[in-house]
Amino acid sequence: MSLHDDQVTGGAAPRSRPVTVTVIDYDESRLEERTYTLPGEFRLSVLHEGVIWIDVDGVHDTGVIQAVGDAVGIHPLTLEDIANTRQRPKIEDYGDYLYVAVRMLAPGDGEFHSEQVSLVLGRGYVVSFQEHPGDVFERIRERLRAGAGRLRSVGPDYLFYALLDAIVDGYFSVIEVFGERIEAVEEEVVADPDRGTLQVIYALKRSLIALRRSVWPLREAVAQLERGESPLIGEQTLVYFRDVYDHTIEVAETVETYRDTMSGILDVYLSSQSSRMNEIMKVLTVIATIFIPLTFIAGVYGMNFAYMPEISHPWGYPAALASMAVVAVAMLLYFRKKGWI
Amino acid sequence: MSLHDDQVTGGAAPRSRPVTVTVIDYDESRLEERTYTLPGEFRLSVLHEGVIWIDVDGVHDTGVIQAVGDAVGIHPLTLEDIANTRQRPKIEDYGDYLYVAVRMLAPGDGEFHSEQVSLVLGRGYVVSFQEHPGDVFERIRERLRAGAGRLRSVGPDYLFYALLDAIVDGYFSVIEVFGERIEAVEEEVVADPDRGTLQVIYALKRSLIALRRSVWPLREAVAQLERGESPLIGEQTLVYFRDVYDHTIEVAETVETYRDTMSGILDVYLSSQSSRMNEIMKVLTVIATIFIPLTFIAGVYGMNFAYMPEISHPWGYPAALASMAVVAVAMLLYFRKKGWI
Amino acid sequence: MSLHDDQVTGGAAPRSRPVTVTVIDYDESRLEERTYTLPGEFRLSVLHEGVIWIDVDGVHDTGVIQAVGDAVGIHPLTLEDIANTRQRPKIEDYGDYLYVAVRMLAPGDGEFHSEQVSLVLGRGYVVSFQEHPGDVFERIRERLRAGAGRLRSVGPDYLFYALLDAIVDGYFSVIEVFGERIEAVEEEVVADPDRGTLQVIYALKRSLIALRRSVWPLREAVAQLERGESPLIGEQTLVYFRDVYDHTIEVAETVETYRDTMSGILDVYLSSQSSRMNEIMKVLTVIATIFIPLTFIAGVYGMNFAYMPEISHPWGYPAALASMAVVAVAMLLYFRKKGWI
Amino acid sequence: MSLHDDQVTGGAAPRSRPVTVTVIDYDESRLEERTYTLPGEFRLSVLHEGVIWIDVDGVHDTGVIQAVGDAVGIHPLTLEDIANTRQRPKIEDYGDYLYVAVRMLAPGDGEFHSEQVSLVLGRGYVVSFQEHPGDVFERIRERLRAGAGRLRSVGPDYLFYALLDAIVDGYFSVIEVFGERIEAVEEEVVADPDRGTLQVIYALKRSLIALRRSVWPLREAVAQLERGESPLIGEQTLVYFRDVYDHTIEVAETVETYRDTMSGILDVYLSSQSSRMNEIMKVLTVIATIFIPLTFIAGVYGMNFAYMPEISHPWGYPAALASMAVVAVAMLLYFRKKGWI
Amino acid sequence: MSLHDDQVTGGAAPRSRPVTVTVIDYDESRLEERTYTLPGEFRLSVLHEGVIWIDVDGVHDTGVIQAVGDAVGIHPLTLEDIANTRQRPKIEDYGDYLYVAVRMLAPGDGEFHSEQVSLVLGRGYVVSFQEHPGDVFERIRERLRAGAGRLRSVGPDYLFYALLDAIVDGYFSVIEVFGERIEAVEEEVVADPDRGTLQVIYALKRSLIALRRSVWPLREAVAQLERGESPLIGEQTLVYFRDVYDHTIEVAETVETYRDTMSGILDVYLSSQSSRMNEIMKVLTVIATIFIPLTFIAGVYGMNFAYMPEISHPWGYPAALASMAVVAVAMLLYFRKKGWI
Repeated sequence: MSLHDDQVTGGAAPRSRPVTVTVIDYDESRLEERTYTLPGEFRLSVLHEGVIWIDVDGVHDTGVIQAVGDAVGIHPLTLEDIANTRQRPKIEDYGDYLYVAVRMLAPGDGEFHSEQVSLVLGRGYVVSFQEHPGDVFERIRERLRAGAGRLRSVGPDYLFYALLDAIVDGYFSVIEVFGERIEAVEEEVVADPDRGTLQVIYALKRSLIALRRSVWPLREAVAQLERGESPLIGEQTLVYFRDVYDHTIEVAETVETYRDTMSGILDVYLSSQSSRMNEIMKVLTVIATIFIPLTFIAGVYGMNFAYMPEISHPWGYPAALASMAVVAVAMLLYFRKKGWI
Repeated sequence: MSLHDDQVTGGAAPRSRPVTVTVIDYDESRLEERTYTLPGEFRLSVLHEGVIWIDVDGVHDTGVIQAVGDAVGIHPLTLEDIANTRQRPKIEDYGDYLYVAVRMLAPGDGEFHSEQVSLVLGRGYVVSFQEHPGDVFERIRERLRAGAGRLRSVGPDYLFYALLDAIVDGYFSVIEVFGERIEAVEEEVVADPDRGTLQVIYALKRSLIALRRSVWPLREAVAQLERGESPLIGEQTLVYFRDVYDHTIEVAETVETYRDTMSGILDVYLSSQSSRMNEIMKVLTVIATIFIPLTFIAGVYGMNFAYMPEISHPWGYPAALASMAVVAVAMLLYFRKKGWI
Repeated sequence: MSLHDDQVTGGAAPRSRPVTVTVIDYDESRLEERTYTLPGEFRLSVLHEGVIWIDVDGVHDTGVIQAVGDAVGIHPLTLEDIANTRQRPKIEDYGDYLYVAVRMLAPGDGEFHSEQVSLVLGRGYVVSFQEHPGDVFERIRERLRAGAGRLRSVGPDYLFYALLDAIVDGYFSVIEVFGERIEAVEEEVVADPDRGTLQVIYALKRSLIALRRSVWPLREAVAQLERGESPLIGEQTLVYFRDVYDHTIEVAETVETYRDTMSGILDVYLSSQSSRMNEIMKVLTVIATIFIPLTFIAGVYGMNFAYMPEISHPWGYPAALASMAVVAVAMLLYFRKKGWI
Repeated sequence: MSLHDDQVTGGAAPRSRPVTVTVIDYDESRLEERTYTLPGEFRLSVLHEGVIWIDVDGVHDTGVIQAVGDAVGIHPLTLEDIANTRQRPKIEDYGDYLYVAVRMLAPGDGEFHSEQVSLVLGRGYVVSFQEHPGDVFERIRERLRAGAGRLRSVGPDYLFYALLDAIVDGYFSVIEVFGERIEAVEEEVVADPDRGTLQVIYALKRSLIALRRSVWPLREAVAQLERGESPLIGEQTLVYFRDVYDHTIEVAETVETYRDTMSGILDVYLSSQSSRMNEIMKVLTVIATIFIPLTFIAGVYGMNFAYMPEISHPWGYPAALASMAVVAVAMLLYFRKKGWI
Repeated sequence: MSLHDDQVTGGAAPRSRPVTVTVIDYDESRLEERTYTLPGEFRLSVLHEGVIWIDVDGVHDTGVIQAVGDAVGIHPLTLEDIANTRQRPKIEDYGDYLYVAVRMLAPGDGEFHSEQVSLVLGRGYVVSFQEHPGDVFERIRERLRAGAGRLRSVGPDYLFYALLDAIVDGYFSVIEVFGERIEAVEEEVVADPDRGTLQVIYALKRSLIALRRSVWPLREAVAQLERGESPLIGEQTLVYFRDVYDHTIEVAETVETYRDTMSGILDVYLSSQSSRMNEIMKVLTVIATIFIPLTFIAGVYGMNFAYMPEISHPWGYPAALASMAVVAVAMLLYFRKKGWI
């Protein structure tokens, strides 16, 4: 995962991909779904009854964004925010509509795949913008098409909630992936840490920083929704936003807990490194301090002095060997007392 | 204790366990207690006077939750929260009723055993949901059956308080277990730390993170109750919630203190490791630096040069030994001056 | 100092100690002092003019607490709090009276001795509860008996302030003891740190954690008093509580400063350990790297090959010694360049 | 970059540089641009319609600041602030005008080049002060001269926004430079860290501290603007300040993320140092502990005792070599078991 | 600098120093200056027009404090605070007067010299108390005596501001001293760190803690003044207090930045220690691992076995030397590959 953008595939190549605008126009009794792939084709009237969900895939085409924006009346600043896919998650209340920018997460190659989704809630409509086709809204589309259920019978604020809820649910699967990786690295640290372990710990910590950066502003944004200051969100829908808010808090807290856990794992890793060093030093010290004096004794009797009485004594050699054994045993006892062997 | 769920036994197996719904219906003069074990059996009317406590064991059976919810009028979102046993502790005011999700802790196999309890306080009733049969409410049931006392004569808000108080009291026993373990590990660190000590420290730190995650949101939830914004809680009961709130603060602060203490213990552990390394290095250095020069001297006189005047001198050997002794003593004095021996 | 309770003497034994209730009943013109040692004796009427100070030593006797509580009208929850000597410092406003639980500190065996004091301020009376006879209120009693002065002429709120002020003043003497110990350990760390130093640093850090735990909630409690929300505290006395509040802030900040200082001392300690290791390693490295090559040269000429031309050369031995000297000097120059010797 | 001032060229020399005052006077229909280089020349009347932008380069000349200040009515304290180029970013509302001091950043020699810009927004005019000629406002001047567009048709509050926005945009380019440097040092730490790496890490951390010091107060200042308390900023312009505010938050959060990342990199660096030490120690230990016993055996048979039966045995030499081989292999197996080789 | 008091000269000796009370009584047209050195002499009437500045040097004489306090009407608690020279910086509004206690700093022997100044602002007068004669107010006295200027024509609130501003300006010179010392220690750490460097780092960190303790409460106190809640401070003077407030924020932030910088320097120091250790170990390891095998080979051919075919071979000696060279070169190549040499 790159430091600047989680979404490396959002580079030059996809700019040539066609833009898709899907309009789902429904009320309790009917549902109409149209898809435009040529920007010029897109036409819209939002005057009639019911709810319109305009789903735009491909925000690199400012012409389409402009067209959609003009159709429902979105402020130029908001259009800029929509086109800029590195927006910080935020909510803005423009009176006529609410603008929410969030990051849609899904488990991916690295720790997770991240993409910006812009949602606009106005009177009678919801617009959602994203760059790439795949999303977490498929189940909502199915529920809409299926007909029955709260989603079809209530206004756009409930649809808006449903989209937001689907996105936040995606965070939980990412969280789960993190949970598994953390457990894996934890076992590795306890069982057999090597230098690669440190790289993994560091990479996880960095991903958690990136994840946190998506989660915290989202939490603030949903908190603002939940306070119910906008007339666009009905009294009976408010309780659902409270639910989403609880989920974002839960995600945020889990991320914090993971960060704490990672710090603990790093401590264990560093300490186990230092433990290993202790062990290595002990082996060296035990071997060296036992043999160095012995080698010295051998060296003494390897000297070529003409007059060395012990040399010619018949018990000289066994005595030298015996004294070596005594030194070695004394050393071993000393080390055992120290608890090193 | 697993990272994801404290409650490993809450897996697949218990799903087949029967659900028990116990209804205690009382006022100052009478108490009636019924137990339903077949979900279909459960019938309830909450219309009459007095207090009803519906105690549900086994939240895996959504049918029963639904039935209870319908009987007293609980919002679908709350029912979802009740069925989800990994809820973050929270309070939600739905106007007609208050919903509180907390974790019921008890000292257990690891550091503690944790289970979610959902409490619903409405007009004339309290509902409590949990997955497993054992709980901390036994004393409350006894006091209810015993008859006399405040519990029987006051409304459901006091019962609600009593349940919450029993749960928070359970936290204190968990806290005590932690206190003992921390003292044990503390002694171990001071007396004889090994690599296992680090594992224990790490495990305790992790459990404290998990404990903290139960305690802090609980504290917030109780704070909200204590503010007395809900008409469901009478003026004279409010003071009891303040008491519970004090207890949660105390638990929360103790957990923080324990975290601080654990950090201190880790510091001592790491520092004692580094102390040991120093000691090992000292031994190696003293032995090696004394004998290396001596061995060198022996090496010199072990050379086979034809013309080495010292070799043939009768005092050569004693002089060599004496010079070795001088070097050794000088080294020892130097080390004593350094404070290494 | 134990982790759980600073007050180890508060165990089973003192439970048999008699309880003393001292009632000081005064106004500007008169002062009456009675002492009851048998719980049953205690009688009280709070109906007349003036101020009554009821001072209870020995909170293990719930009967006496109950009797005093009944006499002045204290809520059962407050009585429970009074009997529980491990209360967190707090203030509670029951309308009719203010309840304050604080810890009375005094320099003691470890870093300090700590005991819970409960103060109740009502209309016309102050009640103080503590377990052990000795306290910091002696000077207040003397000033009361002496007669003249503000203490006699003003209401119970001023007496209440005077008691609180005496307790907070006790914190300063504890703070001073810490200051001295910290300076002592600081000198030790700079001059001659050993493993015992670490134990002392750790013990001081722990005591600071415990002290902090008494100070911070006290600060909050006094802040609440100072805000002047209770009608029990007169306008002209309020300024004195502001003074007490300043003192608690000062204590709290000093504790924080001490914590910072201890962290700095720990850093110095750890760094000096690592410095020592460097020094030890330097000595080993210098000695070993000088003599190892020399010993090798000696080893070469100790070989017994039949054909070694240098061996039989008359200048062989001096040349070998000279080459050893050259190696040694080169090594020494290298180490001097490195700044190791 | 110096600790005290990022702007070392702001010393004595530039004081002799001439001051330039550029006045751009425009409304929807016309634009007039005058440049004064002699302080005495500057004359101004702000009475007519339209917007006046007075752009002062060179705040070392207090005479000019005074003249400009007198012309539009700026408080002496503000003039002092303008002249002091080491102001902390801030906003001050003097009723008649708003004073904003910010730091204009641009990628530069070290991490970035920083200069103070003072903006004054009054009725009908904006004044901008800076010391050095180059700035980030060139595009705004071009847009003004170009004529059409929002900038020409709206009041001074929009010009004020445009200037602030240009400054905040400059922060993003600085942020990008940091991003690249952090990635570079990250790779270096993973691939081949040396002592220079630490210097780079430290320098980056310091620059981030300096950057943060510019960003955080700016964020507060813009937050105050965005709250819309000043009548000088029209309702329809407010939304643009909200946009600037979002950008400052984004910059601030990125800086925080970078700080976290740097901490992580430092951890990896320190840990890799300790890894290297482990590796070095392992090599030393393996070599030393294998050869020390072998050398000892060789030493034993190098002793010159008259009576050493092995010496004269024909299989003595092969047996000695074999025993050495056995010791060496045993050692190697032991180290392989330990995972050191 | 001592932990308890920055002002060691404030001990017993100075108590015998005479107290000086200087009264400067002025309005726009006249200025009268009287100095009293005998406490008994001091007389004052504050009834007439104009501003009176009473400047008391020597707060150890409670008689004089009392006399001054009686003359202008200061509450006994304030008088106590004035006499206590270890006050925490604070502001107190007694309705009739404002009491401010701050620390006057000046660069001194250690990092800085610190003394408490108490300022009282009442209707028509300002009283300043300090223990020692020298202060930072000399320029204000000169401006007063010089006559013209805002200081003479405005009320006591402006004088009060001028005194506070002079004190805060003194903080900047202390800050500058810190800046220089930090840069010095920074260079030392990079160039040639030794154990003394650690002591310097630690001392600077401690002084910063002490400085911070003066700055933060001052900031709060000035913030309270700036909010303009006291009628004693006129509307037009308020803007000057905002300026002082900005300065205190700047000082506070610089102190925080310095703390961050010091932490960074400590990290570099510790890491460079660990780097040195690595370097030392590398030298030892390279030398030892090259020569230990060589010495072993020499040892083998130094054995005295009767039957060693290589010994008597004419090419034995050159072959042994060659094999040693091969081993040495192989080792060197290995170390070069590792990047150790």
